[in-house]
This record gives sequence, C-alpha cells and structure tokens, in this order.
Amino acid sequence: MQPLRNNLAIALLHYPVYNKRREIVTTALTNLDLHDIARSARTFGVSRFYVVTPSLEQRKLAARITDHWRDGWGASYNPDRKEALDIVRVLPTLDYAVQDLQSVVEKRLQTIVTGATPRPNSIDCQKLRELLKTADTTYLLLFGTGWGLAEECFQEADLILEPIAGMDDYNHLSVRSAVAITLDRLLAKP
Amino acid sequence: MQPLRNNLAIALLHYPVYNKRREIVTTALTNLDLHDIARSARTFGVSRFYVVTPSLEQRKLAARITDHWRDGWGASYNPDRKEALDIVRVLPTLDYAVQDLQSVVEKRLQTIVTGATPRPNSIDCQKLRELLKTADTTYLLLFGTGWGLAEECFQEADLILEPIAGMDDYNHLSVRSAVAITLDRLLAKP
Repeated sequence: MQPLRNNLAIALLHYPVYNKRREIVTTALTNLDLHDIARSARTFGVSRFYVVTPSLEQRKLAARITDHWRDGWGASYNPDRKEALDIVRVLPTLDYAVQDLQSVVEKRLQTIVTGATPRPNSIDCQKLRELLKTADTTYLLLFGTGWGLAEECFQEADLILEPIAGMDDYNHLSVRSAVAITLDRLLAKP
Repeated sequence: MQPLRNNLAIALLHYPVYNKRREIVTTALTNLDLHDIARSARTFGVSRFYVVTPSLEQRKLAARITDHWRDGWGASYNPDRKEALDIVRVLPTLDYAVQDLQSVVEKRLQTIVTGATPRPNSIDCQKLRELLKTADTTYLLLFGTGWGLAEECFQEADLILEPIAGMDDYNHLSVRSAVAITLDRLLAKP
C-alpha cells in the first residue's frame, strides 16, 4: 500500500448512521460508493479510504468488489479502477480505522466529522486546507451513508467540518458528490 | 417547471461518447447518474438537467425513474428526490436540448463542453464563474458518459471547460463526481 499523502485519509461509515426516520441503523454497502469515492480519492491524492461496516457479510461483499478490480480479471480489464481500489481498506469499526491509520503515521491523529446540518464550532474547508499543510497532524475525515452520521460521531470527533452550502435550504447531495466536492475544496491545486 | 436560474443548464450525453476502445457508442442510462446529478444540480440552483439519449427504450426508462419520484409513491416517500428530479428533461439529441432551453430564455445560448483531457483554448472554472454573472448569455454545460464526449462535441461547442486536475496524471472521476465538483466551483457561495 502507498504511503499516506496530504496528511489526509477518509472513511465512509455505514454505522452509526440515521435512516429516514432518524433511527440509528447499519446501511447496506453500495458498489458505486466504493468506486466513485475511491476514484475521487485517488484523483486528489488521498491514499487511504476506509470502508467501515460492522456487518461481516457486507465486509465480505466489499472485499469481493475490491478483489475483483485489484486481482481478478477487472485488474487487467481496467487498471484505472485497480489503482483507485488499491487505496480501499474494509474494517468493522471506526476505532479499527483509527488504529490502522495510526500504525502508518508517527504524527498525532485527529478525526473530522462531516454532515449536512450547520453546527456551532465548525471549521470551513479553507481552514482545513491550511491545517493539512501543517506537518504535525494527520486527519481522518468521516462521511456518513444513509441520512447522515449519528450524533455520537459529532460528540466524539476532534473537529467538525462545515456543510457544503447550496443555493438555498435544499442540501441533499449524495455522499459520493459530497466527498468529491470536499476533496476538491481541500486538495485541488490553487 | 421552474424558471432558469444562474444562466446555467446542464446536459448529460449518452451519445456520441467513446467506449473503452475509443469507438463512438450510445451508453446505457444509469439510475444513479440521474439521481446524483439531479441532486447536485438542485443543490447549486441549476434548474434544467437534460438527459440526452437517442435510444427510445432508454428514454422510456428515464421517464419511468423520474415519474416514479415525481408522481408515483416515491414523491410522497421522499419529497427531496421529487424536488431534484423535477428539473430533469429527457430528450433524444443535444439539438433538442438546445431548442428546449432556447425556448425558455430570451438570451443568446452557448454550449460548453467538458472532458478529462487538457485542450488548447479552454477556459477555467473561475472564468466561467464570471461569465455566468454577465446577463447576456445562457450557458448549457455538456457532460459525457462512458469514456467521454466524442471529438465532434469539442468541435461544435462554443466553449471548452478545462478538465478538473488531480494530484498527478490520474484523472478518472466518475461523471457524477465531475458534475458535483464543477457545479461547486461555478456556483458555490464565495
């Protein structure tokens, strides 16, 4: 696996997230989340993308998808996908992801949580973009599936990133689009 | 249908686009392209999203998807999707899309083509962002499915938008991610 670049890794959490009725659930893994987010991450130089789900069945499914494109016939059919999916790691909890990331960096590690609702004490992308240039901390940026990350994620994270604001109150970007926009804001060349 | 906002509409072309072997093909419509792109467009205040495919079968499929969320039980189950898919129009060719758009604006209409390969005479997002603020022109921004829009689209368009540059040569964003990033760059609040 490649060394960590840009002081940044991302994680897509399938638990604990809300469903439509604001119940805390484990969402199903989506093939296209893996592909789209891995491709966005690889494009902007993020070299760790953690796919987090407590479901063993779902982790097996994620492994089948990534193995197909990494080592199966998909790897020779489409090497660009292989290169993107090479950065994916599938783990059962956020704690495992944090431990895995900590094992490859000497630096302090901080988690940053994202969501669609404005909250006090958030930092904006411009501020985080500057933080990424400092050399003393590695950041793990958390995205939620379903109707967004549960409240406990906001309590436990070190930092909160401001939501992506649209034209008005409507803010229902897919998580795939939200990741793409966020990485562009944080890492695109000026 | 809502009036056009921001001087900008977008179109997703399923023909003429390249396949992996650089043959010109009609790609299959993807359910998630419609949803993700409609949600991104609605978030940033783009009120026309043309889905262009010459295949009658595929247009029927697109209509079934949008009707389900606009008028079927999907509309009451998830009003946010209804609001996003309300901006979708499904048409057989780019010419039809241009005519439809021209019919709702008095202004001059210009097409802007996007792609992943750098080309001479391109404009960047910052420049286009400024152009959108001028009052005399409406722009239709074209995105390609498959392996990107065919050469003829670049010859015929009025303007070419610079590709989204990543960290290095790897640039394989999904079209869903490319649309999200482009709209954010063009229309996000400063």
